[in-house]
Amino acid sequence: MSEPRIDAQRFLSRLDAFALIGATPKGGVNRQALSPEDRRARRLLAELGQARGFSVGQDAIANLFIRREGKDNSRPPFLIGSHLDSQLTGGRFDGALGTLAAFEVLEALEDAGVETPFPVEAVAWTNEEGSHYQPGCMGSMAFASGSIPQLWTTLRGHDGSLFADELQATLEALPQAAMRPLGFPIAAYLELHIEQGPSLESENIPIGIVEGIQGTRWLEVEITGQSAHAGTTALALRRDAMAAAVRGLGSLYAEIMPCDARARFTVGKLVLEPGAVNAIPEKVAFTIDLRHPESAVLDRLETLIRNTFAEAAAGGGCASTLRRIFDMPPTVFSPLLLERLNEAADSLGLASKSMLSGAFHDALFVNRVAPTAMIFVPCRDGLSHNEAEYVEPDQAVAGARMLLASTLKALENR
Amino acid sequence: MSEPRIDAQRFLSRLDAFALIGATPKGGVNRQALSPEDRRARRLLAELGQARGFSVGQDAIANLFIRREGKDNSRPPFLIGSHLDSQLTGGRFDGALGTLAAFEVLEALEDAGVETPFPVEAVAWTNEEGSHYQPGCMGSMAFASGSIPQLWTTLRGHDGSLFADELQATLEALPQAAMRPLGFPIAAYLELHIEQGPSLESENIPIGIVEGIQGTRWLEVEITGQSAHAGTTALALRRDAMAAAVRGLGSLYAEIMPCDARARFTVGKLVLEPGAVNAIPEKVAFTIDLRHPESAVLDRLETLIRNTFAEAAAGGGCASTLRRIFDMPPTVFSPLLLERLNEAADSLGLASKSMLSGAFHDALFVNRVAPTAMIFVPCRDGLSHNEAEYVEPDQAVAGARMLLASTLKALENR
Repeated sequence: MSEPRIDAQRFLSRLDAFALIGATPKGGVNRQALSPEDRRARRLLAELGQARGFSVGQDAIANLFIRREGKDNSRPPFLIGSHLDSQLTGGRFDGALGTLAAFEVLEALEDAGVETPFPVEAVAWTNEEGSHYQPGCMGSMAFASGSIPQLWTTLRGHDGSLFADELQATLEALPQAAMRPLGFPIAAYLELHIEQGPSLESENIPIGIVEGIQGTRWLEVEITGQSAHAGTTALALRRDAMAAAVRGLGSLYAEIMPCDARARFTVGKLVLEPGAVNAIPEKVAFTIDLRHPESAVLDRLETLIRNTFAEAAAGGGCASTLRRIFDMPPTVFSPLLLERLNEAADSLGLASKSMLSGAFHDALFVNRVAPTAMIFVPCRDGLSHNEAEYVEPDQAVAGARMLLASTLKALENR
Repeated sequence: MSEPRIDAQRFLSRLDAFALIGATPKGGVNRQALSPEDRRARRLLAELGQARGFSVGQDAIANLFIRREGKDNSRPPFLIGSHLDSQLTGGRFDGALGTLAAFEVLEALEDAGVETPFPVEAVAWTNEEGSHYQPGCMGSMAFASGSIPQLWTTLRGHDGSLFADELQATLEALPQAAMRPLGFPIAAYLELHIEQGPSLESENIPIGIVEGIQGTRWLEVEITGQSAHAGTTALALRRDAMAAAVRGLGSLYAEIMPCDARARFTVGKLVLEPGAVNAIPEKVAFTIDLRHPESAVLDRLETLIRNTFAEAAAGGGCASTLRRIFDMPPTVFSPLLLERLNEAADSLGLASKSMLSGAFHDALFVNRVAPTAMIFVPCRDGLSHNEAEYVEPDQAVAGARMLLASTLKALENR
């Protein structure tokens, strides 16, 4: 047995090989969950695993597991991984980096002949992106709850395909995989991912130690006034829903994020009715994506938003409603596991910083059933969900080294 | 020969009869230009005209003319009228009121045996609303220019129908109508219309004497930033196109209309890209409907708008463009004709006020080739382009009396 080490060339070549599966002309990937491209990527990972003598399994939601046995194989495995599916015009690293780094960790352990106290498994979760079927994180969500929601069985994708059919076909496309129970016990979970934001890059820090995921609420605001002719209706007689929305939004853009660096306030969808150039809008419906690491602050901001629009609407002869359409409380990762991550970064001499994730990840759901933590690496310009997404090879390798070292640190005391 | 007078019962029954053609369950009408319903309304008007011995004609764009001969029939006719087409969920009075009042004027002249110095014709212009085929005011526009733009021959309606086909079928559906040259000379044009705004009603004045139509510019503003993840991107790193748009709009809503009672500023269409709840908008494209009776003020406001968005965009790391997509300069109606309208209102003892039209009308185009003016009557709550559009019977009749008296005053000195 030697000291296990990441084989940088092998790992980077793997990233290149997987980037060819569903490659887009602009250098990104379109590898939607349960698509033929997704199946090819899963098959390639399974074959690579079999070639190294690892066992391959999948569960009822098509989460894919590559297992390297340890000393006591009756104990729950240590799980590392991410996802292989992508956005429609996604990047090469979102998901693939963490999945292939996890597989590289298995190979590094195998190369070095390390006997771990219990099994280590690499996982590729199903449909993290939610770009083919909604919602995202289906695989980790079903794993954490131990069941597949009845609702999903009738789901259709943006292309009209039936989720249940494509799930079945995806499972059948991997006949060599043993069937694993959905939500089998695990010892812990570690996920390496690109930051999908610009903070590590801008501070020139190679490793982010992710302490949790900020809470997210999606709000839907509707402001209702009265449609009238744009040319004939004087100001005093207008009940312009758009003017009221702008008044409210103006004060919220000026207050929320400027006053709290940890808050995120985004209006990403807006629809005007009737939607004609020369008609005063009768209705404006828009979404607010609101995030913060503290539940109490989310509550306070939601109240502020509700009151702001109620006041802006009333001031313009309009009415407003606010509806919470999605609510994900803040996630706090395992402090013990985070200690191991800090030790690992120190042992590698890699600069790191503790941070929160602004985006969802499979780790959010897995954290409900086992100690979980995440590692971030920088991506260029913070760009993600974009074909131009890019990670420097050195930084990708540093992430894989960090995943390996963290896994070893975590296993040390077990 | 007796004093000609409006037959209120006949006129109101006609309004009811035409309201049945394309009637909607909510009491409005859906009588889109060149549709089967429009053809039925045209046929009914033609038949009513023929029954009174008037001659019926149409031109190449299907403008419909009902002609009552005068003393010298070689002279250009005096034209009165409006349109019979409606919005998809339109009201019973918008267009029909003026068209049927014009026909009632012909009948009143006929009943009284008045010999006018030259012919008087009632006109129903084609496709004023633009609800079936864009643009609106096709009939009066083609009449004023004397030709049909080549572009229109390949136009399709919102229902996929080809404008040229439906125009042909509409013309063929009225075989009894003589073919008139497009844009034949006329002596003058008078149009009665509902105000489509609340000012007459709120001041309790039955007659508006319309001195002109305010100028209209349609501007298209695009603000371009960068899309990024709503959860991961801190304020300093955002280039949020929507936040920039709201900053600019906020100051324009607060400045333009509150500072100038004659200005109109409306944002009726807005599209966000990529348009996902959790994506910072990369692009906001919206329209501005800007109106004012003075060209110089429109110029000044357009510059203000351009500068405001340029500044708001630059302040948020975005860029802005502004494009003028439509420009209709202010229209000034014939001062001589307006004098006759004032005399007519006085002679009838009807309170009136001089006003501007905020909306377009066929009169805008006809004004380019002959002395033109308009008469407004109040409509309930200023509501129009709405199935609930309503005009009090007394006020509809007052409008018809005003049209008759104005026609007689205008003919007196010819």
